[in-house]
Amino acid sequence: MTGPARSSQNAQYGLLTSIANEAGVSPATVSKVVHRRRDVSEATRERIETLLAEYGYVRVWEGDAGRPRQILAVFRDLAGPYTLEVVRGIVESGAEVGVHTTVGTTSRSSIGQWLQKSVAMGAAGVVIVISALADRDQRRILDQGLPVVLVDPLNAPSADIPSVGVTNWHGATTAVQHLIGLGHRRIGMLAGRSSSLAGSARLHGYRAALAEAGIPYDPALVRSTDFDYGEALSAARSVLDRSERPTALFAASDVQALGALEAARRLGVAVPSGLSVMSFDDTLVAAMASPPLSAVRQPFRELGQEATRILLNLADGRPPATTRRELATELVLRMSTASPRSEKSGRA
Amino acid sequence: MTGPARSSQNAQYGLLTSIANEAGVSPATVSKVVHRRRDVSEATRERIETLLAEYGYVRVWEGDAGRPRQILAVFRDLAGPYTLEVVRGIVESGAEVGVHTTVGTTSRSSIGQWLQKSVAMGAAGVVIVISALADRDQRRILDQGLPVVLVDPLNAPSADIPSVGVTNWHGATTAVQHLIGLGHRRIGMLAGRSSSLAGSARLHGYRAALAEAGIPYDPALVRSTDFDYGEALSAARSVLDRSERPTALFAASDVQALGALEAARRLGVAVPSGLSVMSFDDTLVAAMASPPLSAVRQPFRELGQEATRILLNLADGRPPATTRRELATELVLRMSTASPRSEKSGRA
Repeated sequence: MTGPARSSQNAQYGLLTSIANEAGVSPATVSKVVHRRRDVSEATRERIETLLAEYGYVRVWEGDAGRPRQILAVFRDLAGPYTLEVVRGIVESGAEVGVHTTVGTTSRSSIGQWLQKSVAMGAAGVVIVISALADRDQRRILDQGLPVVLVDPLNAPSADIPSVGVTNWHGATTAVQHLIGLGHRRIGMLAGRSSSLAGSARLHGYRAALAEAGIPYDPALVRSTDFDYGEALSAARSVLDRSERPTALFAASDVQALGALEAARRLGVAVPSGLSVMSFDDTLVAAMASPPLSAVRQPFRELGQEATRILLNLADGRPPATTRRELATELVLRMSTASPRSEKSGRA
Repeated sequence: MTGPARSSQNAQYGLLTSIANEAGVSPATVSKVVHRRRDVSEATRERIETLLAEYGYVRVWEGDAGRPRQILAVFRDLAGPYTLEVVRGIVESGAEVGVHTTVGTTSRSSIGQWLQKSVAMGAAGVVIVISALADRDQRRILDQGLPVVLVDPLNAPSADIPSVGVTNWHGATTAVQHLIGLGHRRIGMLAGRSSSLAGSARLHGYRAALAEAGIPYDPALVRSTDFDYGEALSAARSVLDRSERPTALFAASDVQALGALEAARRLGVAVPSGLSVMSFDDTLVAAMASPPLSAVRQPFRELGQEATRILLNLADGRPPATTRRELATELVLRMSTASPRSEKSGRA
């Protein structure tokens, strides 16, 4: 395969070299003119453009046909492992269908500005990840018919704007049922903020699993924090540093589960023998934790594929049949969960 | 600020609504024509275009002035925490100067294809991250004068292609000197592959620090693996599971350090009391490890800024004064390093 590719490349180089010789300039100068750079004098540019036309040189990338399709993926920030998984999911599934992904954050540009940039760039549309969408932006999207897909929106969006997420409630229920199945009865939770749709659904899933097993809900075992390591570390310490501490903790995200592992280590509680830790997300950090975390896996690749597919369809004027899609989660068991030891031997 | 912005938006909506009324179509249809979508009949499109022209509607984003500048950031994959930090560094520093970053991987498109896409997209240039650049691609970049900057290249690139990295050798030396200063003498290393420039420099830095302190180099305490958690976990076990095991391990990357922490946990060795673990990278996982990792910090933000700055200058015809830039690393001390205990009490 390299043979023909190489010779076609050489043919192109040969052409530009011939033009360079004829114009009495370097091949680099010809290349600059080809790429429409400005650091070439007007006279030289004109001479070379004439020669390019005479030789029939075609800038294949000009015009709609040659320009790759693009989508925008906009995040609140690029700080956590969740972000990387979603970036990867969108970039890779875009690449499968020849679409390029431009990544941005709302730290310097508002959602409204990104919507405008998307149009300015000629992008097919915008995937907006874990953000709260202001009413103004929702109206703008709907009024102007802008192709937008929300991934894990923080608040409930207008029913007319498509969104993709996972089965947060069901995933949480399954995770807590697993802990109950191992014999745990005092199960705490490091929950997300109730203002977050996903956080709220995971907390309700936890409560549903307890209720179903006849275990009373004990608010003393539950803390709500951001999906944040430091906050979760403090919260886990306060839940664990008590006489009647839980034998298991369910964390609403991987970064909170990592905080729980560190809280346990500082208190001298071994995981999983003294405390089981169950996580939610299964980003790259879950499998690299010590011990590796059992977790509810979000299908990041499928999230990216689904968001990209819906967005491209929207851009082509084909709205989705249902605007809210929830993809199935999966329970992944590693080394951070086990049956509880007898009540008295909690401390290592 | 929202007041005027809102009313200007309303004015625009008002205009499109007037046009919609006059044309006897919905505002959504007018919006489709404005955005040049194809799912509108030719007759309708022409009628609306005429009205848009009559009303003096300007598509502000058309033409060079309105189109944001773009750069491409190409990675081998998007799998590790290192990737996220570099993506963030480039995206955020691009945003500071109004440049958008399109992210891609070489899993489906070769470097050569990305170079071509960059031109096709009208991008300012390409940042290529931790890749080995084939001779063919290097020639192509130089012959065509393509704006390219390498971040942490795997092999030594042509002296004419600018590259940015960190002081790998010096950072490693400083880290090992710190361990020696704590009293460690048997210091092992989870090194990278010697085929990687960065991996090789970090190994040589480790050896230099030992030599300077008069500590003989013991190859039995060193393992070379990819920057990979699983490989490092096995390697660390084999180094630690011996009678004369090291009291400290220096890992060439965060993911290898996480493997070392897990190897220690499985062998019942407490960190840092039984084993110090020093890392290199300081990606997000370092501070969230259990215990949080002491590490040589790569200045990811500055890497992104420098790569973006050099690339935009290149695109404007201004090559950098020096083609190889090494940014300074910094030693960050957390909880995974301490003075060694007495020799005999290594096991917890």
